[in-house]
Amino acid sequence: MGNIDYVVHQVAVPPPQPFLKSLKYSLKETFFPDDPLKRFKNQPTSKRFVLGLQYFFPIFEWAPHYTFHFFKSDIIAGITIASLAIPQGISYAKLANLPPILGLYSSFIPPLIYAMMGSSRDLAVGTVAVGSLLMGSMLSNEVNPNEDPKLFLHLAFTATFFAGILQAALGLFRLGFIVDFLSHATIVGFMGGAATVVCLQQLKSILGLDHFTHAADLVSVMRSVFTQTHQWRWESAVLGFCFIFFLLITRYFSKKQPKFFWVSAMAPLTSVILGSLLVYFTHAEKHGVQVIGELKKGLNPASLTNLVFVSPYMSTAIKTGLIVGIIALAEGIAVGRSFAMYKNYHIDGNKEMIAIGTMNIIGSFTSCYLTTGPFSRSAVNYNAGCKTAASNIIMSIAVMLTLLFLTPLFHYTPLVVLSAIIVSAMLGLIDYEAAIHLWKIDKFDFVVCVSAYIGVVFGSVEIGLVIAVALSVLRLLLFVARPRTFVLGNIPNSVIYRSVEQYPNANHVPGILILEIDAPIYFANASYLRERIARWIDEEEDRIKSTGDTSLQYVIMDMSAVGNIDTSGISMLEEVKKVAERRGLQLVLVNPGSEVMKKLNKSKFQNDIGQKWMYLTVEEAVGACNFMLHTCKTNLKKDEPEGWNNV
Amino acid sequence: MGNIDYVVHQVAVPPPQPFLKSLKYSLKETFFPDDPLKRFKNQPTSKRFVLGLQYFFPIFEWAPHYTFHFFKSDIIAGITIASLAIPQGISYAKLANLPPILGLYSSFIPPLIYAMMGSSRDLAVGTVAVGSLLMGSMLSNEVNPNEDPKLFLHLAFTATFFAGILQAALGLFRLGFIVDFLSHATIVGFMGGAATVVCLQQLKSILGLDHFTHAADLVSVMRSVFTQTHQWRWESAVLGFCFIFFLLITRYFSKKQPKFFWVSAMAPLTSVILGSLLVYFTHAEKHGVQVIGELKKGLNPASLTNLVFVSPYMSTAIKTGLIVGIIALAEGIAVGRSFAMYKNYHIDGNKEMIAIGTMNIIGSFTSCYLTTGPFSRSAVNYNAGCKTAASNIIMSIAVMLTLLFLTPLFHYTPLVVLSAIIVSAMLGLIDYEAAIHLWKIDKFDFVVCVSAYIGVVFGSVEIGLVIAVALSVLRLLLFVARPRTFVLGNIPNSVIYRSVEQYPNANHVPGILILEIDAPIYFANASYLRERIARWIDEEEDRIKSTGDTSLQYVIMDMSAVGNIDTSGISMLEEVKKVAERRGLQLVLVNPGSEVMKKLNKSKFQNDIGQKWMYLTVEEAVGACNFMLHTCKTNLKKDEPEGWNNV
Repeated sequence: MGNIDYVVHQVAVPPPQPFLKSLKYSLKETFFPDDPLKRFKNQPTSKRFVLGLQYFFPIFEWAPHYTFHFFKSDIIAGITIASLAIPQGISYAKLANLPPILGLYSSFIPPLIYAMMGSSRDLAVGTVAVGSLLMGSMLSNEVNPNEDPKLFLHLAFTATFFAGILQAALGLFRLGFIVDFLSHATIVGFMGGAATVVCLQQLKSILGLDHFTHAADLVSVMRSVFTQTHQWRWESAVLGFCFIFFLLITRYFSKKQPKFFWVSAMAPLTSVILGSLLVYFTHAEKHGVQVIGELKKGLNPASLTNLVFVSPYMSTAIKTGLIVGIIALAEGIAVGRSFAMYKNYHIDGNKEMIAIGTMNIIGSFTSCYLTTGPFSRSAVNYNAGCKTAASNIIMSIAVMLTLLFLTPLFHYTPLVVLSAIIVSAMLGLIDYEAAIHLWKIDKFDFVVCVSAYIGVVFGSVEIGLVIAVALSVLRLLLFVARPRTFVLGNIPNSVIYRSVEQYPNANHVPGILILEIDAPIYFANASYLRERIARWIDEEEDRIKSTGDTSLQYVIMDMSAVGNIDTSGISMLEEVKKVAERRGLQLVLVNPGSEVMKKLNKSKFQNDIGQKWMYLTVEEAVGACNFMLHTCKTNLKKDEPEGWNNV
Repeated sequence: MGNIDYVVHQVAVPPPQPFLKSLKYSLKETFFPDDPLKRFKNQPTSKRFVLGLQYFFPIFEWAPHYTFHFFKSDIIAGITIASLAIPQGISYAKLANLPPILGLYSSFIPPLIYAMMGSSRDLAVGTVAVGSLLMGSMLSNEVNPNEDPKLFLHLAFTATFFAGILQAALGLFRLGFIVDFLSHATIVGFMGGAATVVCLQQLKSILGLDHFTHAADLVSVMRSVFTQTHQWRWESAVLGFCFIFFLLITRYFSKKQPKFFWVSAMAPLTSVILGSLLVYFTHAEKHGVQVIGELKKGLNPASLTNLVFVSPYMSTAIKTGLIVGIIALAEGIAVGRSFAMYKNYHIDGNKEMIAIGTMNIIGSFTSCYLTTGPFSRSAVNYNAGCKTAASNIIMSIAVMLTLLFLTPLFHYTPLVVLSAIIVSAMLGLIDYEAAIHLWKIDKFDFVVCVSAYIGVVFGSVEIGLVIAVALSVLRLLLFVARPRTFVLGNIPNSVIYRSVEQYPNANHVPGILILEIDAPIYFANASYLRERIARWIDEEEDRIKSTGDTSLQYVIMDMSAVGNIDTSGISMLEEVKKVAERRGLQLVLVNPGSEVMKKLNKSKFQNDIGQKWMYLTVEEAVGACNFMLHTCKTNLKKDEPEGWNNV
């Protein structure tokens, strides 16, 4: 080969690394991809302590630089979100079959914890509709909230406790990436389905029905609604639709005119006040309009001793806690991340999980139920111009004052207003535009999204979630099990070789078949690839037979996109090489990556195929093959299959 | 850009395809990668019928060309495997807690079915040790074989029936790739573990114990053996070890001298004859050496009406059937494939599954239990020079003659000889060399293998299998969730850019960071990649700060190895672009593949980044960036971050 007149570059085996070093590297990339310990490097111990404190309690980082200017912004944002948090809190607690006062409790303690531990400047802490519904329906399977409200309440605390434990543990053990397995498409479908289900549940209060199904699926709810048409209350329905209309109008207005964000933020509280005044003056509570009734004055009672750690309830609480914990976490992290991106600061997902988890653990000791960072409330916080997590403290103080002095005011608040608040919030979650976008870009994502939606609406929240996650994981597995392979051709007037499917003007190289494999070669695809490569060769030989081109002599496999290989994959390569040789073809490898080279080298396949048949670029491989094809022809004057072996 | 003096190639969006066409293509690649319908194309209907018949019954393909020369070879191979099949069949039936005669029944009917339907010329059909053990232990959990042997037998037929249904269904629905998820490493560990467990079970007969644990794990067996030391029978043990020694010696001899393959093939039958004669003449059955006892003369009775389709037994039978069915299938397919490769003919995995499944379904109707193509017996068949599946017919006839006339001869066969046959076969399955090979090449495969082994030996066969498959799938998911990213550098005296890790002599390009991503960009890795890319930029800027190099202006992302992208991935790219811009960096994409280009095009990201910032090769991208870096510097005499925007 010395007389080839261009430079051929050798494929390198990466320098050997001790096993422990490469293991350490893999573990670091898996669990510490964001390198959280970087800041502690080369620091004295005292400084390390301060940095560690600031890491777990970011308040120590921002509080010393806190200014009056920040305070002005935060107080406006805090009061705005409090005015949203109070009616929403009461509404969502009803959704979870819990006493309304719990919604207020949950907007008092958790925001204080988050203000100390959270690293997002925009997240506004509170309860969420989907999490509340999910918790309520899962716990109802075990305990009837109407028959044993006390046990139900204690189970809710216990579930919150386990949700917090799970969240904090995921963060501590750096397993935050589990949340990534809930893809955007899953969340769109799941949230849309949950919002639909929540809206359907509101038909109970809006139609003023006394009896209602405990099931959440569409079929049961529709049956429940339409078997009781004679029980519908028009007073309640009119009131409900008026408030929904009012809330939607204000939201539409605020969306068009972002500086009037406070119009939609204040609308729920306005609705509550208007609704309460209406009931108070018309005595509508005596005409079929249900009201909240008495709310106990005073701050959160302790609930540490209420946690239920006995079977059979504990296992239900754990299961509920795990599922609602993951869902709440996914929302909180996604919200924190998106606002951080707008304002260009960084959020550590694992650290946020510790903050959210701690907030729920302490919450479960102080009569709070599941909280996270809901999107709607955080968006209001952001629009209101919050500067730091101090806006959560302001909100918390406002809720505290409400708990201490203002709870009697909610006595006459009609339930139908709360339902209207929930419906208007939920309609914003049904993101059909996102679903259309998914359909346009990625059909599989659309299928995942729709499956989640249908699963939630016709089955249950858990079924929808399981289907969507299973489909998403199946997609990953299918990507590996059925990788794409391409035939490459030469792009005219260049030395570039690209897929003839993507570049229809690329030309076949006579006598040479160039294949590209687009995935790692693992046990799951080794058999498939073996068959697929054989089929490519068959098809190429059929084509040559029909066109009378130069007969096939070389199969070049471009390994650039093969990220890794396992022992099954190496056996596959050995088989492909043997089969090719039996058909009189020479296998040529191009650009195996470092992981692949390491393994080929150790397995002796490298020696087997010979350094001579490995090239760094397709260009060089084609050049060498062409050179040999040419030499054979001129030397032997015939296409002797053994010819090239002797070069 | 007109004044750049080299040709820049455009990245192409592949020609649009109708949705249904691309869906059809995906489904075809997923379920019909081997294109089984190709042969039916452009054929008249009558020819299609013949081809279809030949497809499902390959005997019609090879029988018309059958010659006397083939027959001579097949008859030798058939008699050889029959002499192995008879003692092995009896032994393995004992392993499954079934009457010994079932082993003979199972070597009569199933080989006939396979000879008609199977496409392998080398597979010898029969029962397998691991499958027998697994079936016996799984069914024993539901029914005690000593207390209710009849029900147990019927359950075994039912499990075989369901195993056959599963196998045939996998083949019919083209789901054969599910078997690929049992990787080579899994099978090595699993088989080794199962062989260890089977050997441990033989301690019962070898030590002549009457009572023995029903559990199969190491701890229980050891406890059972060492609590009964006073019950050990030296006669039995001496006989056992002598025969094991004899069998191992013959195997070793045949391995060294392959043309004496018949020595090891005949050894089990020789042992049975020697053992029986010894017992007959010494009356050892009265001195603690257990014998088989009476075997019923005659062919297989029908068992169709014995199948059990009532709960609670049916669910056990289904579960057992599914697991043993998959395991048996994996062995049969792997054996068929490897011999086909040696002899250079092609086997259709899905078609083989239909053959094996049908053979088990019909077997379950005719008093046979689970059969497949065991490796050891097929290897003997191959070495004995079989030419077609007719050797299975010869074996079947030999077994039939045995059933009709020779069963009384096995009355005095000592159980300890059967145990010796099992142990010597099993020791060959503990493939520690393969495990060492795995350790050398791929540590993760080794971990999978050892986990399977430990799971089987200390837990149970099912536990080992589940652990190994879960680890293997986890590896695939981790590959996608934590893809490798590399910094590329310029290889000296070339225009090639490769990973600086693999090619330590590759040079950084000043002012430009070139990154390569080695996996599809999916929801599972979008967050990780965003953080990792940010970290690469940080590290590069730190390096530049410390060395005083040209400040960073361009981030080139080589997308060659990105096989696909989903909507989460596209959002990630959009975010990376925004973040880069905020830091004054321009993002440049290189060589996005067809799937990626399709989606970038539909999502408008392509317009967003601009065709100007997409190049076909890293060389062209670096050329363009360098050109602009240079123009900026000479035009503006300063590193103005906005400079390059105006070029």
